[in-house]
Amino acid sequence: MRIVVLGSAAGGGHPQWNCHTPASLRAWREDDGASRRTQASIAVSADGERWLLINASPDFRQQILATPALWPQRDLRHSPIGAVLLTSGEIDHIAGLLSMRESQRFDLYASERVLAVLAENAIFDSLNPEYVARKAFALDQPLDLLGLRVTPFSVPGKVPLFMESRSAGDLAGSAEETLGLCIEHDGHRIFFIPGCASMPQSLRQRLRGAALVFFDGTLWRDDEMLVAGVSQKTGQRMGHMSIDGAGGTMAAFDDLDVARKIFIHINTTNPVLNAHAPERAEAAAHGWEISHDGMEISL
Amino acid sequence: MRIVVLGSAAGGGHPQWNCHTPASLRAWREDDGASRRTQASIAVSADGERWLLINASPDFRQQILATPALWPQRDLRHSPIGAVLLTSGEIDHIAGLLSMRESQRFDLYASERVLAVLAENAIFDSLNPEYVARKAFALDQPLDLLGLRVTPFSVPGKVPLFMESRSAGDLAGSAEETLGLCIEHDGHRIFFIPGCASMPQSLRQRLRGAALVFFDGTLWRDDEMLVAGVSQKTGQRMGHMSIDGAGGTMAAFDDLDVARKIFIHINTTNPVLNAHAPERAEAAAHGWEISHDGMEISL
Repeated sequence: MRIVVLGSAAGGGHPQWNCHTPASLRAWREDDGASRRTQASIAVSADGERWLLINASPDFRQQILATPALWPQRDLRHSPIGAVLLTSGEIDHIAGLLSMRESQRFDLYASERVLAVLAENAIFDSLNPEYVARKAFALDQPLDLLGLRVTPFSVPGKVPLFMESRSAGDLAGSAEETLGLCIEHDGHRIFFIPGCASMPQSLRQRLRGAALVFFDGTLWRDDEMLVAGVSQKTGQRMGHMSIDGAGGTMAAFDDLDVARKIFIHINTTNPVLNAHAPERAEAAAHGWEISHDGMEISL
Repeated sequence: MRIVVLGSAAGGGHPQWNCHTPASLRAWREDDGASRRTQASIAVSADGERWLLINASPDFRQQILATPALWPQRDLRHSPIGAVLLTSGEIDHIAGLLSMRESQRFDLYASERVLAVLAENAIFDSLNPEYVARKAFALDQPLDLLGLRVTPFSVPGKVPLFMESRSAGDLAGSAEETLGLCIEHDGHRIFFIPGCASMPQSLRQRLRGAALVFFDGTLWRDDEMLVAGVSQKTGQRMGHMSIDGAGGTMAAFDDLDVARKIFIHINTTNPVLNAHAPERAEAAAHGWEISHDGMEISL
């Protein structure tokens, strides 16, 4: 199994287009080794030729340009991307579909809930139904996708931001709103969970003994965006648990026997983005890596 | 007046994500001086501080990163982009709005027709109405935008591709479907017309004596995409006149007394993208420049 991290940042990327904090300034200027990051998405392949794209970020085109394995390889029109799977209907997970035009065959997998969001927005008619098959999956039912066994499951989360005003106050939404994925191939079992609001016992059980987990690294602490002065929202309000603290992700994973733990979907305010920050060292001491755009993993 | 070309390519950019023609291969590999291009958009400023963004391309975030004048300049949240104006509802002109999140003040100007497209697609609710005012303009009525005088006008065109199946066979659409802009400041008069299906006498009259015209450079010849084997569509079917030939753009402009003529919205198949192509030399002989990402002009 080959995995490429196409993008490692949370919604808006790093820096966000209108963010002028000291951390963002370093990214704008690419000062002091600070790297810019595109929005979270990974590609996974069983054979190195056909790739499953997991989430289609607004930075899709830039991510493809940066990843030779995903360049067209033959004929006049071609893409190694054979299928796309969406873990939510949030903009940073679906907007890249608008760049996957025109007349290129691939299968698009999502929950009924997320497919309904796409169907309600005519702009996604840009995915010509003669070429793109939209396939609903059921939770906890394994799919055979390009030689990978992929099982979507519900995690605690939130409706997409742009749907909040239409959700009648139910921000948590349905069980299909926010998903994690288990991906299995050749005896390896990995997880991709870019957004998760809390860690119920059922999720802990599921993750035990995994070879690799990509996990929600949005915030270091719940009130981080308020303290930075860039937003009034807590992590909980956004549907994200935080890395640090008694109820945080590091503590939740401490006895889970996961071989490799990698934070992804990292917000522009998160101090772990700074390689010299003590929080980065603390995450490393707990066995966590910080993903970066272009990170490649073979299992 | 300052103008920055943020992107110079037609829909999909250059290379397109699934294009494997020889010209695209040079761009993928950045061989032989071939430059990659993002999708057509320009920014214009009267004072060099507040900028009008014309069209919001899917490559918006990458374009901002490449353009220091559009980076945040002060406070914790800021953008020099004070207003956005759309010339059509095509994906390559509007998808970038999805990256202009969240809670940043700007005014969004478009025709009633294009604002209706945005309203019909809930995903654009990501533009929080508390911060983003959507303002309809009337054709041929000058607007005062950030110190610039901007007059939108109708040009021959086409409904957005993603709306074709809902347009009951009327692909030309309304007069508000495809627009050109006249932008005036400090005695200079320029035009931005990234898509145009033909050159009626009224448009010729309008352009006479302009200081600068950015014009639809999609195709060199009408059947170019068929000959290249990448599409079944002619330029006319897509709503674009071609550069060459008796009814083409070079011929149409030959006696218009426009001081500076620049092609923009250039398709991945257009031979003028190749600096060594005879077509590039022919365009230059007719007084045409080929825009490139990052091109800056002061008037």
